[in-house]
Amino acid sequence: MNSRSIGVLPSVRERILETALDEFYECGFHGATMRNIANKAGCSAANVYNHFENKSELLVEILRRASDEQFTATRNALRKAGADPAERWRMAVVAHSLYTAQNPRACLVANTELRYLDTLNRKRVVGSRDAQEQLFVDIAENAVASGVFDVSRVHQAVTAVLTMCSGIPLWFRADGPLSAQQVADDYGRYALNLVGYHPN
Amino acid sequence: MNSRSIGVLPSVRERILETALDEFYECGFHGATMRNIANKAGCSAANVYNHFENKSELLVEILRRASDEQFTATRNALRKAGADPAERWRMAVVAHSLYTAQNPRACLVANTELRYLDTLNRKRVVGSRDAQEQLFVDIAENAVASGVFDVSRVHQAVTAVLTMCSGIPLWFRADGPLSAQQVADDYGRYALNLVGYHPN
Repeated sequence: MNSRSIGVLPSVRERILETALDEFYECGFHGATMRNIANKAGCSAANVYNHFENKSELLVEILRRASDEQFTATRNALRKAGADPAERWRMAVVAHSLYTAQNPRACLVANTELRYLDTLNRKRVVGSRDAQEQLFVDIAENAVASGVFDVSRVHQAVTAVLTMCSGIPLWFRADGPLSAQQVADDYGRYALNLVGYHPN
Repeated sequence: MNSRSIGVLPSVRERILETALDEFYECGFHGATMRNIANKAGCSAANVYNHFENKSELLVEILRRASDEQFTATRNALRKAGADPAERWRMAVVAHSLYTAQNPRACLVANTELRYLDTLNRKRVVGSRDAQEQLFVDIAENAVASGVFDVSRVHQAVTAVLTMCSGIPLWFRADGPLSAQQVADDYGRYALNLVGYHPN
């Protein structure tokens, strides 16, 4: 019987994932060990291997989840955004930034450790990130077509904006002078400016 | 006698630094080993330890050099920039981006591996980065005071711009369709837009 089918185990799985995120954050992908993750999660290494084949599998699961959650946050924001292309762009960036500010460890690990995955595993994560990126590209292209954005290489501008947002965990502190929402709003304004927004 | 005083050795030191950068880039700080660095540099581990006390010392030297060189590139550009505050900002960002596009490995390692240094060693690197950041803050504050930039939290905007530039090595390829200079020019435009530039 596969252990995953036992009702009580999902919480162990969650605890392993949370512990692994801390371990990747503190030691990096190469410094992290399955043994340390097991110790800190309060279970045996065998138990960790029961849930995840290896370290890559753990990192893939953490990064895919974070990326999917961030994508969902952005799409939820877009459902409330109405039809104005510039406002859709701004609200998408605000939602993306807000998620980043509120989930700093997962977003930081995604930026620093992704490149250590082998090609196949990297592709499993990158697929979800590419879909997010494409959503931003589509919104920006709409706004360019509407004549309210003035930017020539849309994909490059989207990359610049998403990279800018990904840096928030490097300095933002939840107990600092600004709230995550204030920072996200500022970044939404930066993103609107960056693409040469000018109302018709 | 200190081996560093022997005339022929600087090139060994340089080779160790170059090899270590490759090793940090490929394996991360925690995955890199002094033995692998020695092997790949074609010298003994004892020789590496003769030049660098430990792995941290190597990473500090690589990151400080890159940061100092980037700072120099920016200041050189500013010497040619004249007095216009917006043009100074644009040219500083272009020079900073150009260095990043032309030195992708060192800039990427700086972003991903700096946080693994202990506090003291991190401070040795961060001092140089802080000085760079302050230069951008000074230029932007001048432009705000001149009434050509419209941005409220200058330091945060500078951080956003420098993070955006630091992402260039994640996608830029020297043999791709755009030159490093074209990308740097685009990023200069983004940075000018981001801070709400409007000529008087």
